[in-house]
Amino acid sequence: MLPSWRDGATRSAIVEFLDRAGEVPPAERVAVFDNDGTLLCEKPNYVQLEFMLAELRRAVSVDPSIAEREEFHALIARDREALGALGIERIAGALVALLAGLTPEDFDNRVRGFFAGARHPERRVPYRQMRYQPMLELIAELRSRSFDVYLSTGGGTEFVRAIGQNFYGVTPEGVVGSQIDYDVARAADGSVHVVRTTELVGPPNEGSAKPQNIQRILGRRPILAAGNSAGDAEMLDYARSPAGPSLALLVDHDDADREYAYESEAATFATAESILDTAARSGWTVASIRDDWSTVFSPS
Amino acid sequence: MLPSWRDGATRSAIVEFLDRAGEVPPAERVAVFDNDGTLLCEKPNYVQLEFMLAELRRAVSVDPSIAEREEFHALIARDREALGALGIERIAGALVALLAGLTPEDFDNRVRGFFAGARHPERRVPYRQMRYQPMLELIAELRSRSFDVYLSTGGGTEFVRAIGQNFYGVTPEGVVGSQIDYDVARAADGSVHVVRTTELVGPPNEGSAKPQNIQRILGRRPILAAGNSAGDAEMLDYARSPAGPSLALLVDHDDADREYAYESEAATFATAESILDTAARSGWTVASIRDDWSTVFSPS
Repeated sequence: MLPSWRDGATRSAIVEFLDRAGEVPPAERVAVFDNDGTLLCEKPNYVQLEFMLAELRRAVSVDPSIAEREEFHALIARDREALGALGIERIAGALVALLAGLTPEDFDNRVRGFFAGARHPERRVPYRQMRYQPMLELIAELRSRSFDVYLSTGGGTEFVRAIGQNFYGVTPEGVVGSQIDYDVARAADGSVHVVRTTELVGPPNEGSAKPQNIQRILGRRPILAAGNSAGDAEMLDYARSPAGPSLALLVDHDDADREYAYESEAATFATAESILDTAARSGWTVASIRDDWSTVFSPS
Repeated sequence: MLPSWRDGATRSAIVEFLDRAGEVPPAERVAVFDNDGTLLCEKPNYVQLEFMLAELRRAVSVDPSIAEREEFHALIARDREALGALGIERIAGALVALLAGLTPEDFDNRVRGFFAGARHPERRVPYRQMRYQPMLELIAELRSRSFDVYLSTGGGTEFVRAIGQNFYGVTPEGVVGSQIDYDVARAADGSVHVVRTTELVGPPNEGSAKPQNIQRILGRRPILAAGNSAGDAEMLDYARSPAGPSLALLVDHDDADREYAYESEAATFATAESILDTAARSGWTVASIRDDWSTVFSPS
């Protein structure tokens, strides 16, 4: 069980939780995982940003004038100063507009096409091999104990759905993320489709939105939540609150040799407190990549 | 197979669809059912209205002054004229405010408590026995053929979730409905809960919102949809649009002896065209309760 987890306080806390969860009715065995930085490496860039940059290159190849738009110019030049000045919301809005009008099937095909060829920019391996092996083992162990496993991501719902089954065995309805709105389009032959708009439905799925959207979309309260950033704090505390056994697990990126060493921050969240101080104050279990994981990445 | 469906064109269309669906990849075998009037009798009132009236009586028993509020006064008096003048949105808003501040667990307990004692006002049986037996048989047949079965209801998501497993074997994440927004509340001990607000998230789940929300919440496109009113039209056409086998099934309430005879209308939708004309024009399959169903209600 959990072969890539080294013996220690963290592994013991996980095993104790798993044992105690046997007392919980199966319908309440619900686990929710953040994606970027929790199940999948998020450095040097979120993989969704790499996908959007690939979409931008595609769009520019069709219509070079697109590259002149201020946000796209800064992205193509990787001009950090200009990007910072424009702000992530404006950048994201410009990228989202590139995909407006696509059906979910079109969008899914684009994402699958991207992952079929994409390699991590530094390690040069497919993104499947950037999944964290210890977390995959934890998911498998949870399922063997009749847990339902879901994802709650700050990333786009449809982007994560496109890889959810293949990467984690999570079906589309199990993905809670930042949502784009849809329009209903009726073709001349009477057929009805939904197409992407440029509008987000509600705020990004970070912070307080995570427990709200878990209830809205899934309707089930987790007793295990795993995350790695300030944007996961409310979700982790939400999982910790039930009367019975619960586990709030924070992945700490402290291994510059095998992964990356950084203080996790959500894209749209910054807090004065370090995430490790928050974890200590909140009673979360911390998984140190350096100390607790004997293997970091999935071999295949 | 389908013992409560009488031989005829409708049963044949269903059987043909089921046979052809064997060619569809299992991941695309998705069926979505409306609830009120499609799986469960909706006359003389939506059962959710009966629940809300019970909640109103409870609130008045605690604080009689509540009964003086204009919307509640009209409801308690069942004053149809006053109710019509106030409008369903204002009535619904007043009732929703009664339940603001409840956690999902509180709300679920209220609904379960209601169904434990509630009887249909005219037939005097538990609401389980107001489920349509032929539709339950169709759901069972779909599941035996590896379909995933979901609900898309104009009713409240949480209200239908509370009965979804018990009435139809649908888990909470499989229910798409009209959604209330949640606030995140942190108690003095640091525990985190979500609590109901008075605000709806987006429009009621009727009309174009049905395909939009099916994609947003489930992320899977149905090849079978079943409904009974103008509010189901876009969902039925959405299911009919794929290239492969599909079925759009309309329940026609034409049996005054065994159920009710009425022209189905969604609560918030009225169209000039009769629903049967829409069905004929759109190529939907019509299930006549009088002609196609040998048994109407579930015996238990």
